[in-house]
Amino acid sequence: MDKLSLHDPLFATYAIAATLMILKTVGMAWLTVYRMMAEKGGYRSPEDLKRTPLNPSPDPQQLVPNERVERIRRIHQNDLENIPLFLVAGFLYVLTGPPLLLAQALLYGYVVSRLLHFAAYLSARTHDTRATLWTIGSLILIFMTARTLLAALGY
Amino acid sequence: MDKLSLHDPLFATYAIAATLMILKTVGMAWLTVYRMMAEKGGYRSPEDLKRTPLNPSPDPQQLVPNERVERIRRIHQNDLENIPLFLVAGFLYVLTGPPLLLAQALLYGYVVSRLLHFAAYLSARTHDTRATLWTIGSLILIFMTARTLLAALGY
Amino acid sequence: MDKLSLHDPLFATYAIAATLMILKTVGMAWLTVYRMMAEKGGYRSPEDLKRTPLNPSPDPQQLVPNERVERIRRIHQNDLENIPLFLVAGFLYVLTGPPLLLAQALLYGYVVSRLLHFAAYLSARTHDTRATLWTIGSLILIFMTARTLLAALGY
Repeated sequence: MDKLSLHDPLFATYAIAATLMILKTVGMAWLTVYRMMAEKGGYRSPEDLKRTPLNPSPDPQQLVPNERVERIRRIHQNDLENIPLFLVAGFLYVLTGPPLLLAQALLYGYVVSRLLHFAAYLSARTHDTRATLWTIGSLILIFMTARTLLAALGY
Repeated sequence: MDKLSLHDPLFATYAIAATLMILKTVGMAWLTVYRMMAEKGGYRSPEDLKRTPLNPSPDPQQLVPNERVERIRRIHQNDLENIPLFLVAGFLYVLTGPPLLLAQALLYGYVVSRLLHFAAYLSARTHDTRATLWTIGSLILIFMTARTLLAALGY
Repeated sequence: MDKLSLHDPLFATYAIAATLMILKTVGMAWLTVYRMMAEKGGYRSPEDLKRTPLNPSPDPQQLVPNERVERIRRIHQNDLENIPLFLVAGFLYVLTGPPLLLAQALLYGYVVSRLLHFAAYLSARTHDTRATLWTIGSLILIFMTARTLLAALGY
């Protein structure tokens, strides 16, 4: 069967996990926009202080970092450090032809670990909680990548 | 026909859009370098103050953020938040076998929206203009990703 | 032969280079964690000052930027600016069917340039050294991307 068919359960598993992670990451940008509008601040560029329909009363304070906005930016940055690598690592991993159940556990496990990481970060849980959830996702990523490397090397 | 052939119009459309976006993003790094050299500043690492052929007259002021350099860094960061996701989302989207004309409209439309976003950001247009252009690209990205997710789920 | 088979020497070359670069980039996250633990600082979120098993003696100084941690963050950020683009550019490039030897020179050359860039950045070599190593990798990336674009355009 065509390895890149969305009717193939293995590739469909990857596509579902990948698209969920893309939507999650894009969601951070929209959440940043939402919080900037709610806070009327947390902007970054000098021109953001021009009077416009969306910013009728500009104020220099709007360029000061706003913790509610910065928190989303940190979560977003954490996604940028992880998700693009996952998107490629997961793709290459399914090309090694792993057992479907294992692939589902790893790919969906990764998605769940990132959603929980988001929840922990958004609600300001302790560093220990956040780090544990990040570690689970990172170990899944490393496992899939190392497995692919070994397969490409002929092992 | 081979789905990943550059002779296939659908995959070629993706490849053209993807490579243009990669070159655009790499261009931001080169533009940062160019502006750092023109401004003789905007550096970030302590060792950048060592006397070298490219920096014959070091000065601690060179480590102070320089707005002309920072503007390019912000544009670059915006690319990092968007382009890697687009590269994978567009790839998966063409695997769903969409109509060629629709794929061209979405993929090339995305490229155009990002180039206009770059022009608006570089020339310091209002936040409203920049945000509108970003939104167009983001909605295209979300549409392609959601369409792929539905296809992978069997809809 | 199946273009996406890890038994195909061309695709295996890509897969080896790609997985090495993914592992390298993930390594930066782990190195950041390691240095934050060694320095007991360089944290970023207010909640990181809560008393936990991993941080038994919180101190507001722990949120001040720590240069040993910031250095790894800058290296990590440089990876984020380059590696995701490389992962897609390399994939599309091998789909153009280049000579194996050329593909190996470019893909493995890229990996070597990034590892040397890491060594130069970690050990605080001059900006000139670091920039030269970055330039080699960036030119390889641009070459592969431009070659793919030309192929997709029918040249």
